[in-house]
Amino acid sequence: MEITHIEHIGIAVENLQEAIKFYENVLGLKCYAIEEVKDQKVKTAFFLVGQTKIELLESTSEDGPINKFIKKKGEGIHHIAFYVKDGLQQALDQMNSKGIQLVDNQPRKGAENMNIAFIHPKSTNGVLIELCEDKS
Amino acid sequence: MEITHIEHIGIAVENLQEAIKFYENVLGLKCYAIEEVKDQKVKTAFFLVGQTKIELLESTSEDGPINKFIKKKGEGIHHIAFYVKDGLQQALDQMNSKGIQLVDNQPRKGAENMNIAFIHPKSTNGVLIELCEDKS
Repeated sequence: MEITHIEHIGIAVENLQEAIKFYENVLGLKCYAIEEVKDQKVKTAFFLVGQTKIELLESTSEDGPINKFIKKKGEGIHHIAFYVKDGLQQALDQMNSKGIQLVDNQPRKGAENMNIAFIHPKSTNGVLIELCEDKS
Repeated sequence: MEITHIEHIGIAVENLQEAIKFYENVLGLKCYAIEEVKDQKVKTAFFLVGQTKIELLESTSEDGPINKFIKKKGEGIHHIAFYVKDGLQQALDQMNSKGIQLVDNQPRKGAENMNIAFIHPKSTNGVLIELCEDKS
Protein backbone atom coordinates (compact mmCIF):
# COMPACT_ATOMS: atom_id res chain seq x y z
CA MET A 1 0.00 0.00 0.00
CA GLU A 2 1.34 3.40 -0.96
CA ILE A 3 -0.06 6.50 0.75
CA THR A 4 0.77 9.66 -1.20
CA HIS A 5 -0.76 12.40 0.96
CA ILE A 6 -3.45 13.34 3.44
CA GLU A 7 -6.53 13.82 1.29
CA HIS A 8 -8.63 15.49 3.96
CA ILE A 9 -9.24 16.00 7.66
CA GLY A 10 -12.86 15.62 8.78
CA ILE A 11 -14.07 17.93 11.56
CA ALA A 12 -17.41 17.42 13.33
CA VAL A 13 -19.29 20.69 13.93
CA GLU A 14 -22.71 21.53 15.35
CA ASN A 15 -23.42 24.25 12.83
CA LEU A 16 -21.80 24.31 9.39
CA GLN A 17 -22.52 27.98 8.63
CA GLU A 18 -21.03 29.17 11.94
CA ALA A 19 -17.92 27.04 11.47
CA ILE A 20 -17.44 28.20 7.87
CA LYS A 21 -17.26 31.79 9.19
CA PHE A 22 -14.25 30.91 11.38
CA TYR A 23 -12.34 29.15 8.59
CA GLU A 24 -13.06 31.98 6.12
CA ASN A 25 -12.98 35.13 8.25
CA VAL A 26 -10.29 34.16 10.76
CA LEU A 27 -8.04 31.65 8.97
CA GLY A 28 -8.54 33.23 5.53
CA LEU A 29 -9.43 29.95 3.80
CA LYS A 30 -12.12 29.70 1.11
CA CYS A 31 -15.04 27.27 1.20
CA TYR A 32 -15.14 25.95 -2.37
CA ALA A 33 -17.99 23.45 -2.09
CA ILE A 34 -20.86 22.34 0.12
CA GLU A 35 -22.18 18.83 -0.44
CA GLU A 36 -24.66 16.53 1.24
CA VAL A 37 -23.63 12.87 1.61
CA LYS A 38 -26.94 11.13 2.33
CA ASP A 39 -25.35 7.75 2.99
CA GLN A 40 -23.33 9.31 5.86
CA LYS A 41 -26.15 11.63 7.04
CA VAL A 42 -23.92 14.68 6.78
CA LYS A 43 -23.64 18.02 5.09
CA THR A 44 -20.01 18.87 4.34
CA ALA A 45 -18.09 22.07 3.55
CA PHE A 46 -14.69 21.86 1.84
CA PHE A 47 -11.61 24.09 2.08
CA LEU A 48 -8.35 23.43 0.26
CA VAL A 49 -5.13 23.93 2.29
CA GLY A 50 -2.15 22.94 0.17
CA GLN A 51 -2.56 19.26 -0.77
CA THR A 52 -5.15 18.62 1.90
CA LYS A 53 -8.82 19.49 2.32
CA ILE A 54 -10.52 20.48 5.53
CA GLU A 55 -13.95 18.82 5.48
CA LEU A 56 -16.39 20.28 8.00
CA LEU A 57 -19.18 17.83 8.85
CA GLU A 58 -22.62 18.72 10.20
CA SER A 59 -25.03 15.90 10.96
CA THR A 60 -28.32 15.91 9.05
CA SER A 61 -29.88 13.37 11.39
CA GLU A 62 -30.21 12.70 15.11
CA ASP A 63 -28.91 9.15 14.63
CA GLY A 64 -26.09 10.01 12.19
CA PRO A 65 -22.47 9.13 13.03
CA ILE A 66 -21.42 12.79 13.39
CA ASN A 67 -24.19 13.53 15.88
CA LYS A 68 -23.21 10.45 17.88
CA PHE A 69 -19.57 11.55 17.85
CA ILE A 70 -20.43 15.07 19.08
CA LYS A 71 -22.64 13.69 21.86
CA LYS A 72 -19.81 11.46 23.06
CA LYS A 73 -16.70 13.61 22.55
CA GLY A 74 -17.93 17.10 21.67
CA GLU A 75 -17.16 19.00 18.48
CA GLY A 76 -13.70 18.39 17.08
CA ILE A 77 -11.50 16.44 14.70
CA HIS A 78 -13.37 13.34 13.55
CA HIS A 79 -11.11 11.53 11.08
CA ILE A 80 -8.04 11.65 8.83
CA ALA A 81 -8.24 10.44 5.25
CA PHE A 82 -5.12 9.11 3.56
CA TYR A 83 -4.96 8.95 -0.22
CA VAL A 84 -4.00 5.48 -1.46
CA LYS A 85 -2.27 5.30 -4.83
CA ASP A 86 -2.26 1.68 -5.86
CA GLY A 87 -5.74 0.30 -5.26
CA LEU A 88 -8.02 0.74 -2.29
CA GLN A 89 -9.40 -2.81 -2.38
CA GLN A 90 -5.86 -4.22 -2.31
CA ALA A 91 -5.01 -1.98 0.65
CA LEU A 92 -8.05 -3.27 2.55
CA ASP A 93 -7.18 -6.88 1.72
CA GLN A 94 -3.62 -6.31 2.97
CA MET A 95 -4.91 -4.85 6.22
CA ASN A 96 -7.37 -7.69 6.68
CA SER A 97 -4.56 -10.20 6.28
CA LYS A 98 -2.62 -8.35 9.02
CA GLY A 99 -5.53 -8.67 11.44
CA ILE A 100 -6.51 -4.99 11.27
CA GLN A 101 -10.18 -4.41 12.13
CA LEU A 102 -11.98 -2.61 9.29
CA VAL A 103 -15.27 -0.74 9.29
CA ASP A 104 -15.56 -1.30 5.52
CA ASN A 105 -14.21 -4.45 3.90
CA GLN A 106 -14.99 -3.00 0.50
CA PRO A 107 -14.80 0.57 -0.84
CA ARG A 108 -17.98 2.63 -0.92
CA LYS A 109 -18.88 6.03 -2.35
CA GLY A 110 -17.88 9.09 -0.33
CA ALA A 111 -18.02 12.83 -1.00
CA GLU A 112 -16.42 14.29 -4.13
CA ASN A 113 -16.81 11.04 -6.09
CA MET A 114 -14.19 9.30 -4.00
CA ASN A 115 -14.11 5.63 -3.14
CA ILE A 116 -13.60 5.41 0.59
CA ALA A 117 -13.24 2.90 3.43
CA PHE A 118 -12.78 3.32 7.18
CA ILE A 119 -10.43 1.43 9.49
CA HIS A 120 -11.76 0.73 12.97
CA PRO A 121 -10.27 2.98 15.71
CA LYS A 122 -9.66 -0.16 17.81
CA SER A 123 -6.81 -0.99 15.44
CA THR A 124 -5.39 2.53 15.14
CA ASN A 125 -4.84 3.96 18.65
CA GLY A 126 -8.23 5.66 18.69
CA VAL A 127 -7.87 7.49 15.37
CA LEU A 128 -10.67 7.04 12.85
CA ILE A 129 -8.68 6.58 9.64
CA GLU A 130 -10.25 6.72 6.19
CA LEU A 131 -8.49 5.46 3.09
CA CYS A 132 -9.61 6.89 -0.23
CA GLU A 133 -8.97 6.84 -3.94
CA ASP A 134 -10.35 8.94 -6.76
CA LYS A 135 -12.22 6.86 -9.31
CA SER A 136 -13.78 9.71 -11.26
CA MET B 1 -2.75 35.81 7.37
CA GLU B 2 -1.80 33.32 4.68
CA ILE B 3 -1.92 29.61 5.46
CA THR B 4 0.01 27.58 2.88
CA HIS B 5 -0.50 24.00 4.05
CA ILE B 6 -1.12 21.70 6.99
CA GLU B 7 2.28 21.36 8.61
CA HIS B 8 1.35 18.45 10.84
CA ILE B 9 -1.39 16.55 12.62
CA GLY B 10 -0.72 15.73 16.27
CA ILE B 11 -2.00 12.39 17.57
CA ALA B 12 -2.04 11.51 21.26
CA VAL B 13 -0.94 7.92 21.97
CA GLU B 14 -0.37 5.91 25.13
CA ASN B 15 2.72 4.15 23.80
CA LEU B 16 4.89 5.66 21.08
CA GLN B 17 6.67 2.43 20.12
CA GLU B 18 3.40 0.50 19.71
CA ALA B 19 1.86 3.29 17.62
CA ILE B 20 4.95 3.59 15.40
CA LYS B 21 4.51 -0.10 14.52
CA PHE B 22 1.02 0.58 13.12
CA TYR B 23 2.12 3.57 11.02
CA GLU B 24 5.16 1.70 9.69
CA ASN B 25 3.99 -1.90 9.33
CA VAL B 26 0.38 -1.31 8.34
CA LEU B 27 0.28 2.09 6.62
CA GLY B 28 3.77 1.73 5.14
CA LEU B 29 4.99 5.14 6.40
CA LYS B 30 8.49 5.73 7.74
CA CYS B 31 9.30 7.29 11.11
CA TYR B 32 12.11 9.74 10.27
CA ALA B 33 12.68 11.29 13.71
CA ILE B 34 11.95 10.90 17.39
CA GLU B 35 12.30 14.01 19.53
CA GLU B 36 11.54 14.99 23.11
CA VAL B 37 9.95 18.41 23.66
CA LYS B 38 10.52 19.03 27.36
CA ASP B 39 8.47 22.23 27.44
CA GLN B 40 5.41 20.24 26.29
CA LYS B 41 6.24 17.11 28.34
CA VAL B 42 6.06 14.89 25.25
CA LYS B 43 8.09 12.49 23.20
CA THR B 44 7.19 12.76 19.51
CA ALA B 45 7.63 10.55 16.44
CA PHE B 46 7.43 12.07 12.95
CA PHE B 47 6.24 10.63 9.64
CA LEU B 48 6.11 12.58 6.38
CA VAL B 49 2.95 12.08 4.26
CA GLY B 50 3.12 14.37 1.24
CA GLN B 51 3.33 17.97 2.53
CA THR B 52 2.14 17.07 6.00
CA LYS B 53 3.70 15.33 8.98
CA ILE B 54 2.01 12.94 11.32
CA GLU B 55 3.32 13.73 14.81
CA LEU B 56 2.65 10.98 17.35
CA LEU B 57 2.72 12.31 20.92
CA GLU B 58 3.40 10.30 24.05
CA SER B 59 3.29 12.08 27.39
CA THR B 60 6.48 12.02 29.45
CA SER B 61 4.67 13.19 32.59
CA GLU B 62 1.51 12.40 34.53
CA ASP B 63 0.54 16.09 34.50
CA GLY B 64 1.46 16.77 30.85
CA PRO B 65 -1.16 18.07 28.39
CA ILE B 66 -1.18 14.84 26.35
CA ASN B 67 -1.83 12.70 29.40
CA LYS B 68 -4.67 15.01 30.43
CA PHE B 69 -6.15 14.81 26.93
CA ILE B 70 -6.00 10.99 26.90
CA LYS B 71 -7.62 10.79 30.34
CA LYS B 72 -10.48 13.00 29.19
CA LYS B 73 -11.05 11.89 25.59
CA GLY B 74 -8.97 8.77 25.06
CA GLU B 75 -6.19 8.32 22.51
CA GLY B 76 -6.79 10.10 19.22
CA ILE B 77 -6.23 13.18 17.10
CA HIS B 78 -5.03 16.00 19.35
CA HIS B 79 -4.39 19.02 17.10
CA ILE B 80 -3.92 20.36 13.58
CA ALA B 81 -1.02 22.68 12.79
CA PHE B 82 -1.34 25.15 9.95
CA TYR B 83 1.78 26.65 8.41
CA VAL B 84 1.63 30.47 8.31
CA LYS B 85 3.63 32.18 5.59
CA ASP B 86 3.74 35.85 6.45
CA GLY B 87 4.57 36.14 10.13
CA LEU B 88 3.22 34.20 13.08
CA GLN B 89 3.19 37.18 15.47
CA GLN B 90 1.14 39.18 12.97
CA ALA B 91 -1.31 36.30 12.59
CA LEU B 92 -1.76 36.15 16.38
CA ASP B 93 -2.25 39.92 16.58
CA GLN B 94 -4.90 39.74 13.83
CA MET B 95 -6.73 36.99 15.68
CA ASN B 96 -6.57 38.89 18.96
CA SER B 97 -8.11 41.92 17.28
CA LYS B 98 -10.96 39.70 16.03
CA GLY B 99 -11.71 38.50 19.58
CA ILE B 100 -10.31 35.00 19.06
CA GLN B 101 -9.16 33.38 22.30
CA LEU B 102 -5.50 32.35 22.12
CA VAL B 103 -3.52 29.93 24.27
CA ASP B 104 -0.29 31.70 23.25
CA ASN B 105 -0.24 35.42 22.57
CA GLN B 106 3.36 35.12 21.42
CA PRO B 107 5.17 32.39 19.49
CA ARG B 108 7.20 29.85 21.44
CA LYS B 109 9.57 27.05 20.46
CA GLY B 110 8.03 23.77 19.30
CA ALA B 111 9.47 20.57 17.85
CA GLU B 112 11.70 20.67 14.76
CA ASN B 113 12.86 24.22 15.49
CA MET B 114 9.46 25.67 14.67
CA ASN B 115 7.91 28.73 16.23
CA ILE B 116 4.42 27.73 17.31
CA ALA B 117 1.30 29.10 18.99
CA PHE B 118 -2.02 27.52 19.90
CA ILE B 119 -5.52 28.93 19.45
CA HIS B 120 -8.01 28.05 22.18
CA PRO B 121 -10.57 25.36 21.18
CA LYS B 122 -13.34 27.61 22.57
CA SER B 123 -12.86 29.83 19.53
CA THR B 124 -12.53 27.02 16.97
CA ASN B 125 -15.46 24.60 17.35
CA GLY B 126 -13.50 22.33 19.67
CA VAL B 127 -10.46 21.91 17.43
CA LEU B 128 -7.07 22.58 19.00
CA ILE B 129 -5.38 24.57 16.22
CA GLU B 130 -1.67 25.30 16.17
CA LEU B 131 -0.13 27.92 13.91
CA CYS B 132 3.54 27.54 13.07
CA GLU B 133 6.40 29.01 11.12
CA ASP B 134 9.91 27.79 10.45
CA LYS B 135 12.54 30.17 11.82
CA SER B 136 15.53 27.91 11.38
